[in-house]
Amino acid sequence: MSMEKLVILTTGGTLDKDHDTFTESIVLGVDTVTNVPELLRIGKTHFPRVQPIMSLDSLDMTDAHREQILGAVNIVPEQCVVITHGTGTMELTAKHLDGKTGDKTVVLTGALRPFALGKSDAGFNVGGAVVAAQALPAGVYAIMNGRIFTAGEVSKDAKSGRFDV
Amino acid sequence: MSMEKLVILTTGGTLDKDHDTFTESIVLGVDTVTNVPELLRIGKTHFPRVQPIMSLDSLDMTDAHREQILGAVNIVPEQCVVITHGTGTMELTAKHLDGKTGDKTVVLTGALRPFALGKSDAGFNVGGAVVAAQALPAGVYAIMNGRIFTAGEVSKDAKSGRFDV
Amino acid sequence: MSMEKLVILTTGGTLDKDHDTFTESIVLGVDTVTNVPELLRIGKTHFPRVQPIMSLDSLDMTDAHREQILGAVNIVPEQCVVITHGTGTMELTAKHLDGKTGDKTVVLTGALRPFALGKSDAGFNVGGAVVAAQALPAGVYAIMNGRIFTAGEVSKDAKSGRFDV
Amino acid sequence: MSMEKLVILTTGGTLDKDHDTFTESIVLGVDTVTNVPELLRIGKTHFPRVQPIMSLDSLDMTDAHREQILGAVNIVPEQCVVITHGTGTMELTAKHLDGKTGDKTVVLTGALRPFALGKSDAGFNVGGAVVAAQALPAGVYAIMNGRIFTAGEVSKDAKSGRFDV
Repeated sequence: MSMEKLVILTTGGTLDKDHDTFTESIVLGVDTVTNVPELLRIGKTHFPRVQPIMSLDSLDMTDAHREQILGAVNIVPEQCVVITHGTGTMELTAKHLDGKTGDKTVVLTGALRPFALGKSDAGFNVGGAVVAAQALPAGVYAIMNGRIFTAGEVSKDAKSGRFDV
Repeated sequence: MSMEKLVILTTGGTLDKDHDTFTESIVLGVDTVTNVPELLRIGKTHFPRVQPIMSLDSLDMTDAHREQILGAVNIVPEQCVVITHGTGTMELTAKHLDGKTGDKTVVLTGALRPFALGKSDAGFNVGGAVVAAQALPAGVYAIMNGRIFTAGEVSKDAKSGRFDV
Repeated sequence: MSMEKLVILTTGGTLDKDHDTFTESIVLGVDTVTNVPELLRIGKTHFPRVQPIMSLDSLDMTDAHREQILGAVNIVPEQCVVITHGTGTMELTAKHLDGKTGDKTVVLTGALRPFALGKSDAGFNVGGAVVAAQALPAGVYAIMNGRIFTAGEVSKDAKSGRFDV
Repeated sequence: MSMEKLVILTTGGTLDKDHDTFTESIVLGVDTVTNVPELLRIGKTHFPRVQPIMSLDSLDMTDAHREQILGAVNIVPEQCVVITHGTGTMELTAKHLDGKTGDKTVVLTGALRPFALGKSDAGFNVGGAVVAAQALPAGVYAIMNGRIFTAGEVSKDAKSGRFDV
């Protein structure tokens, strides 16, 4: 397969949260703005470029942030774009980007348990998203927990907290 | 996307090895025949069926074992087949299966560091393989460390120990 | 050394908290009432008996709970008693027990990061407490992060969140 | 308690081994000469000084190496000395040092599973050794898996691979 150029844009979300010893809460920015480079190192994956563009709980995202993400997707030179994103509003961002990203393959992903807490789904999800961004035709998708969703299908089940029901 | 039926056939390899306290070596079968169910649990991935078919270091695999794998691929009812496999001869098994698996999408994967040792590429690789088996057209592939290889391309670089050079 | 009989009484605290996927908070009782048996298994430590007596954030502990802990210490048959406890009020419980535990060696310990999140100080602290309970003369102590404190000395520094300043 | 000055001398052993991707074996010196500083960081333990003095599988240790360890113990300014050591000949080194370390408290420790593989007893053991070096009278001891051994008692059970039988 041709080795497509691939970038990972990070926006925050659960994936990048960690336990804060002082407040005993799970927050962004404890030791680092993003754990994605460490996640790729463990995945022994050397080719994706990582570019942090914001660091937000996705429940705090507004349409202005989504416009900023859309701008970043269209300005980066890479054809294949993975976006790490909070799970709370991944659906809204997928729909916001849908139809506006030209011939790029754009894949949103995230995690239900922070990477820094161990036993996280982050590596599994990003591993899937990196493959999907190379394998799927142009369009906007989400990869969560082994499932492939088109932009119109993404939906976190409120009751189960799962994407794969 | 349609939720394709997917099976993971496990054959052993580095992915399923663990440290043995007595011999201080890295061997198969320490606590379990395969860690893939635990890996999927952490990946919060509930739909694949897991079927162990052998537990071998891939350097000990013969063509008879490869025939056994081919038989298993063609007899399982699922359209999408992931095979966890040692990295040493993943290339040989991919070529052995190539062209003989009908309309199935078959994806070999494995790990350079055992799942049970932590900081392993196993979750990242299996996460990619599960997506590839649903996203790619019929054929035989390998997914390692974020890269997609057709059966003819799979090759572990002897000098670097890497698939992604 | 004589192999003293040793019991670990668990009361909850940060050590036994875990990330809850639904509420995205750090709470007690996610998968288990206490991780101490798993912690001992990893420590390859087979002799302590583990007895959960309550499961509380130590900020929610009242003097009635401290009386209950004191009762448990004095009723168990073991000479050596380790108590896992939240760090927020470990100081208050140590002072409450002080002078009332006869010829027993009683050692409080806990963790600043939950065991279940990985990279936790729980194993280090409990490893120290189990040794202290066998090595120190009768009395009430706390072991945190490599330091030995008598009941009168225990104090979590509010500014640094540390015991070892 | 008085905050005794404490040094950790590292000599190698299983504790400091890691998985080598190329040879698929468990060896010393993969990423670092010693993981003890990282182990202390996770233990949130800030006061011990760490001094690597050799990096050996303890089965490769000779009496000349044991003389070198004895020299290091007696030359360091600290009263409390922890030595990380392979488990294979911990017994021999303990007996070699016994009676020759003046008024120092010297505690050997190690691990049955390397720190770098996760789920290791290393943190538990070093946590116990750091406490023992402050709590025990002058002499030579070993701490393994929650047990306190005098130099004359240290012995790894060949059949079980355990110290605590």
